[in-house]
Amino acid sequence: MRYVILVAYDGTRFGGWQTQKNSITVQQILEKAAEETFGVKTAVVASGRTDSGVHASGQVCHFDADISVPAEKIADALNVRLPEDISVLKSAAAPPGFDANRSAKLKTYCYRIYCESRRNPLKDRYAVHVKPTPDFEKLQYILHIFEGEHDFKAYCASGSTAKTTVREIKRAEASRTFEGGAENIEIRVTGNGFLYNMVRTLVGTALGYARGAIDEARIRKSLSEGDRESVGKTMPAAGLTLENVDYGFDLFV
Amino acid sequence: MRYVILVAYDGTRFGGWQTQKNSITVQQILEKAAEETFGVKTAVVASGRTDSGVHASGQVCHFDADISVPAEKIADALNVRLPEDISVLKSAAAPPGFDANRSAKLKTYCYRIYCESRRNPLKDRYAVHVKPTPDFEKLQYILHIFEGEHDFKAYCASGSTAKTTVREIKRAEASRTFEGGAENIEIRVTGNGFLYNMVRTLVGTALGYARGAIDEARIRKSLSEGDRESVGKTMPAAGLTLENVDYGFDLFV
Repeated sequence: MRYVILVAYDGTRFGGWQTQKNSITVQQILEKAAEETFGVKTAVVASGRTDSGVHASGQVCHFDADISVPAEKIADALNVRLPEDISVLKSAAAPPGFDANRSAKLKTYCYRIYCESRRNPLKDRYAVHVKPTPDFEKLQYILHIFEGEHDFKAYCASGSTAKTTVREIKRAEASRTFEGGAENIEIRVTGNGFLYNMVRTLVGTALGYARGAIDEARIRKSLSEGDRESVGKTMPAAGLTLENVDYGFDLFV
Repeated sequence: MRYVILVAYDGTRFGGWQTQKNSITVQQILEKAAEETFGVKTAVVASGRTDSGVHASGQVCHFDADISVPAEKIADALNVRLPEDISVLKSAAAPPGFDANRSAKLKTYCYRIYCESRRNPLKDRYAVHVKPTPDFEKLQYILHIFEGEHDFKAYCASGSTAKTTVREIKRAEASRTFEGGAENIEIRVTGNGFLYNMVRTLVGTALGYARGAIDEARIRKSLSEGDRESVGKTMPAAGLTLENVDYGFDLFV
């Protein structure tokens, strides 16, 4: 039987999603919890990897096991074995043919920045301090340029093993709230898939434009010619959260 | 010369504000940073102590030193020596006769809870998971009962050395936001001073009322007769943040 789980994690101390040597990863902790809970080894497959230090509020995973616990109680059973920084929010029986990775249609990432004169320790865990405050209208404008199908080769960190660097971004937009003298900005990007470091490089490029360091022609060139020199810096992992994976239907009813 | 600083800290790993043996405190780290920065030992005096694990987004402190750096640059000078979980947001020369503790008129604390079916690791650092969701209208209603001058003896943890347990609460109110299936509630309490654990016990009592475990007569009795048996449980420190200290004028212009 295949089960699907909705997982949230604080990525701060993890070497990302995927099991690897030399660092603790979310996948290995979930697989250990599943083994301890259900008494069998099983692979926990996610919608996609998240990089080292990246958070998730809505990662979706599947695993196969023969379990007597009702599907919706699996979340509680796993949570008993999980550390404070990982929690299974929901669980259900997977629909026929479901694969958390291959069935995923769209993913939404949120990148958070905060703009105030000095660093704020109550925000640093899930957002990145940016100074000076970027021009919000310019930020909104340039984000729309990334929408549509493009070759994001220039936005892909070296070391990626992706077969193609073409991806479609459905939506890229910024919203903001004000709080005392501070401005908090959230950049949400929804697409059919993302390359290694792509969202963080896209955000760094958009912020470069919004503060006048990169011009629009250069960004358009980065998309048309794949020129890595034309893009901005890759932003730190702490600001990034995988918020949602869309399969075209509701997994947890 | 006396200086005033606005300080934010993530209280998670600290044994509270005040210097003590056997735990790391915010005061001792700030005093060490001041000594290293300005080359002289000086006491850093806060508006009041915060308990172990409690956060601050707007703690106000003063210290005395002879410093050649312009007052508004002191924040940056101190931040160079401070760890990631403490930051000086602003600095200024203190007005004549100013004392961060004795001059304080009002303090505002915020207690954050979140209500969803399961624990969320991205919220646990600054908010507390409460289940089932309390009745928000009841919560708002009961908080107003605490407003005014009362003897808060019943809300004071043992071990307090306060001379009087009478305090005046100017405002106690709740606000909420919805996010997916979750409800996030912020309870803000403004008063002329707070006893040891008072806000956390007040919030526990208000939540007890909102879920039907404590009735209004019992809460009124706790205020009129100081009966400790009549109050709810003391909520965990992680949900509490000292947001603002009001001196009746603007310290940082």
